Amino acid sequence: MTGSTRPSEDDLIARWLRPLATDPAALQLGDDCACLTPPPGHDLVLKTDTVAAGVHFFRDDPWDLVARKALRVNLSDLAAKGARPLGYLMSLALPADWREDDLAAFARGLGEDQAIWPVSLFGGDTIRSPNGLVVTITALGAVPTGRMVRRAAARAGDRLYVSGTLGDAALGLELRLHPESAETWGLDAAARAHLARRYLLPEPRLALAPALLAHARAAMDLSDGLGIDLERMCRGSGVGAEIDATALPLSQAAAAVLAVEGTRLAAVVGGGDDYEILAAVDPAEASAFEAAAAAAGVPVAAIGRVLPGAGDVRLLRADGTAAPPTGGFRHF
Amino acid sequence: MTGSTRPSEDDLIARWLRPLATDPAALQLGDDCACLTPPPGHDLVLKTDTVAAGVHFFRDDPWDLVARKALRVNLSDLAAKGARPLGYLMSLALPADWREDDLAAFARGLGEDQAIWPVSLFGGDTIRSPNGLVVTITALGAVPTGRMVRRAAARAGDRLYVSGTLGDAALGLELRLHPESAETWGLDAAARAHLARRYLLPEPRLALAPALLAHARAAMDLSDGLGIDLERMCRGSGVGAEIDATALPLSQAAAAVLAVEGTRLAAVVGGGDDYEILAAVDPAEASAFEAAAAAAGVPVAAIGRVLPGAGDVRLLRADGTAAPPTGGFRHF
Repeated sequence: MTGSTRPSEDDLIARWLRPLATDPAALQLGDDCACLTPPPGHDLVLKTDTVAAGVHFFRDDPWDLVARKALRVNLSDLAAKGARPLGYLMSLALPADWREDDLAAFARGLGEDQAIWPVSLFGGDTIRSPNGLVVTITALGAVPTGRMVRRAAARAGDRLYVSGTLGDAALGLELRLHPESAETWGLDAAARAHLARRYLLPEPRLALAPALLAHARAAMDLSDGLGIDLERMCRGSGVGAEIDATALPLSQAAAAVLAVEGTRLAAVVGGGDDYEILAAVDPAEASAFEAAAAAAGVPVAAIGRVLPGAGDVRLLRADGTAAPPTGGFRHF
Repeated sequence: MTGSTRPSEDDLIARWLRPLATDPAALQLGDDCACLTPPPGHDLVLKTDTVAAGVHFFRDDPWDLVARKALRVNLSDLAAKGARPLGYLMSLALPADWREDDLAAFARGLGEDQAIWPVSLFGGDTIRSPNGLVVTITALGAVPTGRMVRRAAARAGDRLYVSGTLGDAALGLELRLHPESAETWGLDAAARAHLARRYLLPEPRLALAPALLAHARAAMDLSDGLGIDLERMCRGSGVGAEIDATALPLSQAAAAVLAVEGTRLAAVVGGGDDYEILAAVDPAEASAFEAAAAAAGVPVAAIGRVLPGAGDVRLLRADGTAAPPTGGFRHF
């Protein structure tokens, strides 16, 4: 369609968004608000996150993947809190030149994720964007009352675990910005595709949520990099931590990069967009946690331990030296 | 501060946003998610709305008023649903050139509104904006289970009411774009200030929520203009409506404009940003509704009635002719 026959906002909602509003709480997007009857005996876990063209994704990224990323970065937080996701509200800011097939892809991407995780669109807002696609999603999940897994609850002596592998997304972004690095690193097509995919499409660890709820003392998802996020957990908890660089879990692709260029450890410790889970687990719960994670099909790796000294967060390198995992400061 | 000493995101949150996170559900913004224990016996009413520089406000508008507008457009929806507001999540996209005093004003504006209505910031996200300030707020309110006042529930025979006065914000916007209109319309300083204020800062009708909950059959807030919004209520309800142009409530300022330029009735019927309430009330409840509104200090005016014929929505003009209140179609 041309701009002059562009569908109205009501038409757009009816055609592409209403099919995503599968829960009765959404009232088929036919009201000003959603109306959610909270699950009895549960707290609601609430998170909002925005992704914007040119900031969190490239302007030429496919809209189905942008939509899924926008949803998944929020689901990742719910997973870390031990929550079962219920649904989401979405504010969609469309650039002036949006095309119907882009929007169809956007809705298809959300539908594909809703088929994986049983969430519903609850409601939203659609506006013109002054500059590129911007998607804000507010996700709601449920945990048994008083049981949300906190970030600021780690205790000295706890073991530190991370799910999956670290650094892939940061290396995927690096490859996107500097495709010639693939040659330097000697990566084959499969390795390149793995890293690219990990940047484009996070894998929220919702399968790990029950294990966290049952066995973790503290947890958070890793969005800004292990170093910064671990410092946040420690600062909130009034503790320190020591992590072992040689224990950080790597994909084959990331291991290949580090074998060629060891300084890329910075991407593993400091790179963002991992969307893996960092958890502090009482040693008495460690084997039960590991078993529950294995049963859920989510790999977890023990990477270090929580220390008593507030603010003392260090990375033990392979050569035996120790350093803060970050500069301890971040502009945004 | 200069760009190079710009505070980190964590510092920004601690300094300006944490003081707004007054409810325990916010966990002092020290976790990845908020954790809300829903009020027993209640449904949660959920709404998300975005305001963007250059789309919903002017780039030189004061940030305290932008913040309050962003919050209030959401509170207005909760009011229409008969809900008691609990709190909100906020995604704040800051332009590259944001200044600390702007952000201080932004937080001060929210704090002023939180002093009027007892809501808390629950959580949020802060990002760089590619182009100007963008604020997305997701508001949560509570209504007794099953009692949310619906939009699509009007019935033939219901009386139609609106709160406050209509068209002021649209005329305020017109004055902002064409200040010379004030001369044409013969407006004094007080009238100009009234219209300008009504555009800048909506007044969510939360005081009317209990009267709506007790007595309204259907309700919605007016954000896109009475004509479009009434058509939406009627379409959802499978009914029609007739409204009387001479019954539409006007401020002194708007009445003065219409006395000079009668075609400005279009701003009253079709102008956006009223943030008043449109309610359909069973005639048997009408006097109780009017009494409850009066007791709450919110003026309401009877403007017409709901008709049986689906899709038959008409505005009766002073000269006795009738027409659809809108073209029935809206680009965005």
